Amino acid sequence: MKRFAIVGHVAETGGTFSLNDLPGSGGRMDVLCRCVNSSLFLSHDLRRDVECYLVLCGEPDPEKTILFRGSGVRHLSPDERSSAAFIKKALSIPCGDEFRESTPGVYVRRGGLSRLLAEIPFAVLDEAGEDLRRVPELPENYLLSDHQNFTPAEEEAIAGAARYSVGPRSLHADHAITVLLNEIDRRESGWV
Amino acid sequence: MKRFAIVGHVAETGGTFSLNDLPGSGGRMDVLCRCVNSSLFLSHDLRRDVECYLVLCGEPDPEKTILFRGSGVRHLSPDERSSAAFIKKALSIPCGDEFRESTPGVYVRRGGLSRLLAEIPFAVLDEAGEDLRRVPELPENYLLSDHQNFTPAEEEAIAGAARYSVGPRSLHADHAITVLLNEIDRRESGWV
Repeated sequence: MKRFAIVGHVAETGGTFSLNDLPGSGGRMDVLCRCVNSSLFLSHDLRRDVECYLVLCGEPDPEKTILFRGSGVRHLSPDERSSAAFIKKALSIPCGDEFRESTPGVYVRRGGLSRLLAEIPFAVLDEAGEDLRRVPELPENYLLSDHQNFTPAEEEAIAGAARYSVGPRSLHADHAITVLLNEIDRRESGWV
Repeated sequence: MKRFAIVGHVAETGGTFSLNDLPGSGGRMDVLCRCVNSSLFLSHDLRRDVECYLVLCGEPDPEKTILFRGSGVRHLSPDERSSAAFIKKALSIPCGDEFRESTPGVYVRRGGLSRLLAEIPFAVLDEAGEDLRRVPELPENYLLSDHQNFTPAEEEAIAGAARYSVGPRSLHADHAITVLLNEIDRRESGWV
């Protein structure tokens, strides 16, 4: 299993954002939607061995974590609006401490990064990290930030994590996921 | 300069598609919008040395080619709706044989793939091609197809082109562009 977690620092948590304005009313929900896409989509297929965690930290009801499971999602299309509609639905149901399925393969619970880090060991994708092509054995789980840097509190929480870089340019989170999955695909297929 | 050209086999050409339904009314315009994103966006910056050509082959007024120049675009955001709005604007102006600027850095003209191929030599990104990591010198210009395969007529037109693969899995066009640009970034920065 591979896991990606993306922190959405201002991502809306009430489910009332407009599908016609994901960057504004959604608190850059477009960034998270593209991360769902790059985590799960192959051409005409899904990556069923990938989970994508969205950590939503914005108003009005922070923090919530939404999980997309590649093995379970149905009717998900690659466009931003499609994953946004599933996020909106997840945010609209009563939210407890345990993951609850809002639509097939999509889950929501209360809690944010600190809880997730206590459960799953994440490496950090970060342009200051070690070149992932030079890492003999890549880990399974990766944490990324949205368009904002990690906050000082988040940095403290991940201070001990390994950090890997996908390349010499600073990329959007979804692009970094795509590059990383390509490296993993190559290793799994003996292409490297 | 690097150039990407993506064939949108059913992409709408009248500029009347709905920004709320890019996959349906736009004829999978969402695919092309994501290709604009992956061609041009860095984190907090644009790839000013990239041009992205969208070859639109759908009804009601085929064929048209839209060009996004990284060096010239203004106010372009990474979400699909943003590039879609620029495409809609380009399709709505009178369209002649020469590229005409519809908004800064965005151009439109009549004509499709055969005209473009006569002007610019494109390599083809194709999962059956040679592994791009093993290619000593990568070309500048790459052609991709949208969610559909190239048609027999298109295949004939590109029969002589070099073909490169980004990896062992079949990827969406925008993901393939992201992986390719990462390889080019690495070579330009001495990271390989």
